[in-house]
Amino acid sequence: MTPNKDLKMYSLKDLENYKIHGRTDESQYPLPLFFNGSGIEVNVTGSELWIDIDVDCEIHEPWIWTSINGAFMSRQMLLPGVQSLCLFRGMSPDAVKNVRFTRDLQAMSEDDFCHVLIRGFQTDGSFLPVSDKPYKLEFIGDSITSGEGTYGAKEDTDWLAIYMSSSRNYAVMVSDALNAEYRLISQGGWGVLSSWDNNPNCNIPSIYEKICGLAKGSFNEKLGAAKPHNFKSWQPDAVIVNLGTNDASAFNQPEWRNPETGETFKQHLNPDGTYNQEDLMRFKQAVIDFLSMLRKNNPASHIVWTYGMLGYDLTLAITDAMNTYQTLTGDTNTAFLQLPNTTDDTVGAHAHPGVKSHERAAKVLTEYLKNILGA
Amino acid sequence: MTPNKDLKMYSLKDLENYKIHGRTDESQYPLPLFFNGSGIEVNVTGSELWIDIDVDCEIHEPWIWTSINGAFMSRQMLLPGVQSLCLFRGMSPDAVKNVRFTRDLQAMSEDDFCHVLIRGFQTDGSFLPVSDKPYKLEFIGDSITSGEGTYGAKEDTDWLAIYMSSSRNYAVMVSDALNAEYRLISQGGWGVLSSWDNNPNCNIPSIYEKICGLAKGSFNEKLGAAKPHNFKSWQPDAVIVNLGTNDASAFNQPEWRNPETGETFKQHLNPDGTYNQEDLMRFKQAVIDFLSMLRKNNPASHIVWTYGMLGYDLTLAITDAMNTYQTLTGDTNTAFLQLPNTTDDTVGAHAHPGVKSHERAAKVLTEYLKNILGA
Amino acid sequence: MTPNKDLKMYSLKDLENYKIHGRTDESQYPLPLFFNGSGIEVNVTGSELWIDIDVDCEIHEPWIWTSINGAFMSRQMLLPGVQSLCLFRGMSPDAVKNVRFTRDLQAMSEDDFCHVLIRGFQTDGSFLPVSDKPYKLEFIGDSITSGEGTYGAKEDTDWLAIYMSSSRNYAVMVSDALNAEYRLISQGGWGVLSSWDNNPNCNIPSIYEKICGLAKGSFNEKLGAAKPHNFKSWQPDAVIVNLGTNDASAFNQPEWRNPETGETFKQHLNPDGTYNQEDLMRFKQAVIDFLSMLRKNNPASHIVWTYGMLGYDLTLAITDAMNTYQTLTGDTNTAFLQLPNTTDDTVGAHAHPGVKSHERAAKVLTEYLKNILGA
Amino acid sequence: MTPNKDLKMYSLKDLENYKIHGRTDESQYPLPLFFNGSGIEVNVTGSELWIDIDVDCEIHEPWIWTSINGAFMSRQMLLPGVQSLCLFRGMSPDAVKNVRFTRDLQAMSEDDFCHVLIRGFQTDGSFLPVSDKPYKLEFIGDSITSGEGTYGAKEDTDWLAIYMSSSRNYAVMVSDALNAEYRLISQGGWGVLSSWDNNPNCNIPSIYEKICGLAKGSFNEKLGAAKPHNFKSWQPDAVIVNLGTNDASAFNQPEWRNPETGETFKQHLNPDGTYNQEDLMRFKQAVIDFLSMLRKNNPASHIVWTYGMLGYDLTLAITDAMNTYQTLTGDTNTAFLQLPNTTDDTVGAHAHPGVKSHERAAKVLTEYLKNILGA
Repeated sequence: MTPNKDLKMYSLKDLENYKIHGRTDESQYPLPLFFNGSGIEVNVTGSELWIDIDVDCEIHEPWIWTSINGAFMSRQMLLPGVQSLCLFRGMSPDAVKNVRFTRDLQAMSEDDFCHVLIRGFQTDGSFLPVSDKPYKLEFIGDSITSGEGTYGAKEDTDWLAIYMSSSRNYAVMVSDALNAEYRLISQGGWGVLSSWDNNPNCNIPSIYEKICGLAKGSFNEKLGAAKPHNFKSWQPDAVIVNLGTNDASAFNQPEWRNPETGETFKQHLNPDGTYNQEDLMRFKQAVIDFLSMLRKNNPASHIVWTYGMLGYDLTLAITDAMNTYQTLTGDTNTAFLQLPNTTDDTVGAHAHPGVKSHERAAKVLTEYLKNILGA
Repeated sequence: MTPNKDLKMYSLKDLENYKIHGRTDESQYPLPLFFNGSGIEVNVTGSELWIDIDVDCEIHEPWIWTSINGAFMSRQMLLPGVQSLCLFRGMSPDAVKNVRFTRDLQAMSEDDFCHVLIRGFQTDGSFLPVSDKPYKLEFIGDSITSGEGTYGAKEDTDWLAIYMSSSRNYAVMVSDALNAEYRLISQGGWGVLSSWDNNPNCNIPSIYEKICGLAKGSFNEKLGAAKPHNFKSWQPDAVIVNLGTNDASAFNQPEWRNPETGETFKQHLNPDGTYNQEDLMRFKQAVIDFLSMLRKNNPASHIVWTYGMLGYDLTLAITDAMNTYQTLTGDTNTAFLQLPNTTDDTVGAHAHPGVKSHERAAKVLTEYLKNILGA
Repeated sequence: MTPNKDLKMYSLKDLENYKIHGRTDESQYPLPLFFNGSGIEVNVTGSELWIDIDVDCEIHEPWIWTSINGAFMSRQMLLPGVQSLCLFRGMSPDAVKNVRFTRDLQAMSEDDFCHVLIRGFQTDGSFLPVSDKPYKLEFIGDSITSGEGTYGAKEDTDWLAIYMSSSRNYAVMVSDALNAEYRLISQGGWGVLSSWDNNPNCNIPSIYEKICGLAKGSFNEKLGAAKPHNFKSWQPDAVIVNLGTNDASAFNQPEWRNPETGETFKQHLNPDGTYNQEDLMRFKQAVIDFLSMLRKNNPASHIVWTYGMLGYDLTLAITDAMNTYQTLTGDTNTAFLQLPNTTDDTVGAHAHPGVKSHERAAKVLTEYLKNILGA
Repeated sequence: MTPNKDLKMYSLKDLENYKIHGRTDESQYPLPLFFNGSGIEVNVTGSELWIDIDVDCEIHEPWIWTSINGAFMSRQMLLPGVQSLCLFRGMSPDAVKNVRFTRDLQAMSEDDFCHVLIRGFQTDGSFLPVSDKPYKLEFIGDSITSGEGTYGAKEDTDWLAIYMSSSRNYAVMVSDALNAEYRLISQGGWGVLSSWDNNPNCNIPSIYEKICGLAKGSFNEKLGAAKPHNFKSWQPDAVIVNLGTNDASAFNQPEWRNPETGETFKQHLNPDGTYNQEDLMRFKQAVIDFLSMLRKNNPASHIVWTYGMLGYDLTLAITDAMNTYQTLTGDTNTAFLQLPNTTDDTVGAHAHPGVKSHERAAKVLTEYLKNILGA
C-alpha cells in the first residue's frame, strides 16, 4: 500500500473544529475519554482520516467504536500504546464526512491505568465546524447503562470489557431518536446507596460531582478525573437516572466487610423475605439525597428516575423517596418511569439486558422524553 | 334453506355442561351478562349451534362477539328482542367444538335497560364438560379496560357502544397469553375517587362489592345486579387495577354540580399547574381505601395497580398511596406497574388506546404476571 | 328501545349517492353481491343507518362485514330472509360517515341459492356522493383469494363459509394500502386448468367473462350472473392473478370422473415424481390462454401473476407459459411475482394462509404495485 | 499492561484442531482468506487468544469481524503488515470458547495485492476439535452477496471496502438460522453474462471453477487462487445463486470498450424500452451454461436461483433460461425463488440493500431451504 503523502497531523491543541462528547477535563492534552459514550466528533473533507491516541490499561482493555455519517462502522479492542487508527480511506475528498470515535467501555473503577487519550487527527482534508444538537441528555446508571451484556452470547458469564458498550445501548438509541447529545455516567455493580454486594463506597452519588470520580489513581488524577465537574458548562434538558437494580440485589447478598478497617455493611431482609424497614429507609434517603444533588447541579433539567429493566422490586421504595423529595422541596420537575423488564427473549450476555431489551426500553423512554421535551 | 330438524332446545335451567364467565347472579334465569368479557362457554358436538337470548336497551345497544376453538368469529350489534343467534352451521358433527359467546360492551351505567340475557342453546349435538383454566384474573378499570377506541377510526369521537370491546382488549390478550379465566369490571369515565368530570359518585370502589353496581334500575335489580357479590365463589390469582386516568383528568375539568342537591365537587390545580395537595390527598386516600377493600375481599390475591396507557401524570400519587397502604397494613403482596403510554402510532378511536396500544400493554403485563404466577 | 321515528326508507332504485363494489349486474333491483369483497359504500349523515337486504342459501350461509370510516366494525352470519341490519345508531347526526357493507363469503358455486341482495337503506340522515379512489385493482384467485383460513383456529378443518373472508384478505390489505378500489373473483379449489381434484370444469377462465359465472342456477341467472361482463365499465390499473396452487395439487390427486358422462381427467406425475410433460403442457397452455383472455378484456392493465403462498411448485411452469405468451404476443406489460410461502407461524385454519401470511404477502405485493402504479 | 507470559504460538502448520471456512488452497501456509465470509474457527480454552496474520493491499483495505460463541464481537479495518490481533483477554481459562475470525470484504478483483493470510494463534489455552455443522450452503452472487451497503449511511455513495460485509449479510443470516456452513463467491458489479457496465469479462461463471478467480496477479497466483477448485472436497447441500441484477443494469448502460483491443460489448434495449431479444438470448444462454457448470461440479446439490432484492426486471428471462435448461437436461433439482425487493425502508448505503432488506430476504430463503433440506 502506498502511503498517502498528503496526510497532515492536526493536534487537538491547534484544532478548532471538533466536538467533545462526554464529561472530561477539556483543558487536558491529550484529551481523556473517561466514560462509555464519550468521544470526539468531526466534520472533515479529504479522502482519509486517522486518529492519534494513547491507550493503556492494567487489566481491562478499552473498546471503542466509530461511526461515519451516523452509521456504525467499527468496534474494536484497544491495546496499550501510542497509536494511530485509520477511520476511513479512499473516500471522495470533497464530501464532508461526519465522523465519530467513541469509547464503548465504561469508566473502569477497577483499573486505574485504563485510559484512552486523544492527541489529534491526520488527514488530507480539512475540518469544518460541528454543530450542536437541539437537546442534551444525561444518563446515570449501573451495568445496564454501561451496556453490559449487549455484546456476547447468552451463555457468556465473565465480567469483561468486551461485553460492555455504548454502541448498543438504550441511552444512545434514545438520544439518536431524539437527535440529542448524550452523556453517560455509569458503573456496573454500583447503586445509589451501595453496590450489588453491599459495598457502601460503590454508590454513584459519591462520584457524581467530580469529572470522573470512577477513574482513580494518580494517573487519572493528572488527567483531571478528580476535579469538580463544571455543571454550568453543559446543562442537560433531562437527566435520566437508571439506578436501584444493584441496591435491590444488596438485600440478597452477604455482608460486605472492609478488609482493612473491619467496617461492615449489609442491607437486610426480614425473616419473611420482605425488606427490613430501617435498611430500606436508608436506601430511600440515598434516593432523596441524590435527587437533591442532581437538582442543585442541574437547576432546570427534567429529572426522570427510570427503573425496571432487571426487575421491578424497588419500584415502591424509589417512588416513596421521590414523593418525600417532592414534598420536602416542592420540586415537581421530577418523575418516575418504569422500563419493561428483560425477558428470556430479550436477555443478552451475563443475564443482562440484550440489544432487544435496550431497544424496547429505548422506545418507551424516547416516547416519554418526546412529550417532556416537546420534541 | 332447509331448517335443521334435529335441533333440540336446551334451557340453562336444565343444562349441566357450560361455564359462565364474568360476575353475575348465577341463580338467575335467564342468565344476565353484565360486563364486557362476560359470557358463556360450551364444549359441544353436532353440526349446528344456536344461542337463545333476551336483549333490550333504551339507548346503548349491546354488542357481542363469538369465538370457536379460541378463534374470533363474529362481532355484531344486538337489538331488542327475544331471539336466537346461530353460532355455527354445517360442522363435522362428531368433533367437539369449544364455543364462546361474549359481551363486548361494558356494563352501561347510563342505560338501565341495556341487557343481554341467556336462555339456552339449540343444537343437534350434545354438551360436554368445560374445564377450568389454571389461573383466574380480575381486571378493574375505566374506558381503557372497557376497550373504548379499540374499534373505530381515529377520527371517530362519539361516545358509543360500537367503539368499546372485550374482543380487542389488553385484559383478554393477557388472559389468553397466560391461559387464564378473566373478569372485567370497568366503566368509561369513572375513577377511583371521581369521574373524569369530577362527579364523585362515579367511582369504581362504590360499586365493587355488588355483583354489578354499574347496572342500575329496577330491571337490573331483579337480575341481581345490586346483590352483594360473593367473593368466595371466585378468588382471582391476581387483581389488576387500571384506574387513575379519569382522576387525573378531573383536575383539569370544571366543577361538578348535582342539579338536584346543589352539591359540588372539584379536584383543583394550583395556580402554577401543580396538583392541589389537599385534593391530591383525597385521591390518595381513595387509592388506599380501595386497596383495603380489594384485600378484604381477595385475601390471597396478588394486587397490581397498573397505570400509564393514557399518561403517567398520577404515577407518584398512586405509588405514594400504595406506600402508605403498605406501611399501614404490611401488605406487600401489592405492586405498581406502568404500562406504556399510547402514542400517535398506537392510538385508536376517540383518542383512546387502539389495538396496538392494547397489544403492547398486554405484553408488559403478561410478562409481569408470568413471574408473579410462576406461569 | 324507542324506535327512531325519523328513519326514512331509501330504495336503491331511487337513491343517487352510493357506490357499488365488485362485479355485478348494476341494472338489477335488488342488487346482488356476488363475490367476496363485493359491497356497497355510502357517505351519509344522520344518527342511524340500516341496510335492507334479501338473503338466502341452501347450505352455505353468507357472511358479511361492515366498516365505518374505513375501520372494521362487525362481521356476522346472515340467515335467509328479507331483513334489515342496523349499521350504526346514536351517532352525531351532522358528521358524514363513510359506511361500507361487504360480502365476506366468496361466490358459492356449490350453492345455487346462496345470495345477498341489497334493497336500500333506512336513515334519518341524507346521502352524499361517494368519490372514486385513484386506482382500480382486480384480483383473480382460488381459496387464498377467497380468504379461506383467515378466520378459524389452526385445528379447524371443515370447508365452511365461516372460515372465508374478504375482511382479512391480502387483496383488501393491498388495496387499502394503495387507496385502490378492488374486485375479487375467486373460488376455493379452482385452478387455471382444473380443480385441486382434477375436475377440468372448475377453472377460473371458464367463468371470467361472465358477470359471475360461479353463481349458477336459475335464480342466479335471473340476477344476471350469467350475463357477459361489460369489461369497459371498469378497467383495472392492474390485474393480479393468484392461480396455480390447485393445479399443482391436481398432480397429486386421483383421477376425476364425471359420474354422468364417464368423462375423466387427471394431471399425472411421472414415476420419478416429476411432472408429466404432456400434462404440464396443457397447464401451461391454460396459463397462456388465460393471459390472452385477460389482455383482450383489459387492454391497458398491468397483469401480474402472483404465486407461492401455498408452495412454489409450479413457479417454472407458470413462468414458462408467461414467456411463451410474451414471445407470441410481444405483450411485456405482464409480470410474475412470488409471494412468500405460508409457514407454521403464519398458517391459519384448514392449512390455509392465516392473517399473518396475508399481511406478509400484501406487503410484498403492495411494494410491487407501488412501483408499477407510480403510487 | 503486564503481558501474558503464558502465551504460546501455534502455527497453522502444526495445529490440528481448527476449521477453515470458505474456499481456499488449504495447502498454503500462511493460509489465505479469499472471500467475504471466509475465515477460521477454533474451540479453545485459556484466558487469552491472539491470531497472527499477514495483511496487504494496494488500494482497498480488507475488513474483518470476529465472533465468540456465535456472537458478533468486533469489526475492523486491517492495514498492511505482519501483525497479531487479540481476539479475547481475561476470560475464564477452563471454559471452551468458540471463536471465529472472518473476512468481511469480498475478494477484490480490482486490487491484486489485497490479502489476509493466517499464520496461526497465540494462547495460554489449548485447542479442541471443531465439529462440522449439519448442512453446507454455497452462495454465488454480486454486490448483494458481497453485502455492499449493509454498513454505511443512506447518503454514502462511494464504492468502498468499508461498506461491504459478510457480518450483516443474508447469506450468513440464512446459514446461521439453518445451522449450516457457508461459502460466499461474489463480486460487486459482476453478472452472469457481463458486468453492470457491459464488461463481458466480469462474469461469475468465468471464475467459478478456480479456487478464487477473482484474486488476480502473481501474488494471488502463488497463494493458489488460480488453481482449479477441488469441488469434491466440499459438496454443498444447496447452491444459492443470486445473479442477474447487474445483467439487467447493463441494458441501461453505455457500451463497454476494451481500451487495448478496441473490443466492445453492449446489451441493448429496443427503441420501445423492451429488451433486445438477441441480447436477452445471450443472457439466457449464460444462465443455462452456468446452471450446467454448477450441476457438473455439484452433482447432488439443490440449485436455487434467487432474484429480486434490487428489482424483478429479469425474472422472466431467468426463468425462461431455467425452463430451457430443465427441458434440455431433465434436471429438476433446480428452482427459482424471488426475494423481496428493497424499499425505502430497507435500503442501506449506496442504494444497496440495507440490513433490514438482508433480514427480510434471509427469512424467505431460510423458510425455502428448510423445506428443501428437511431442516
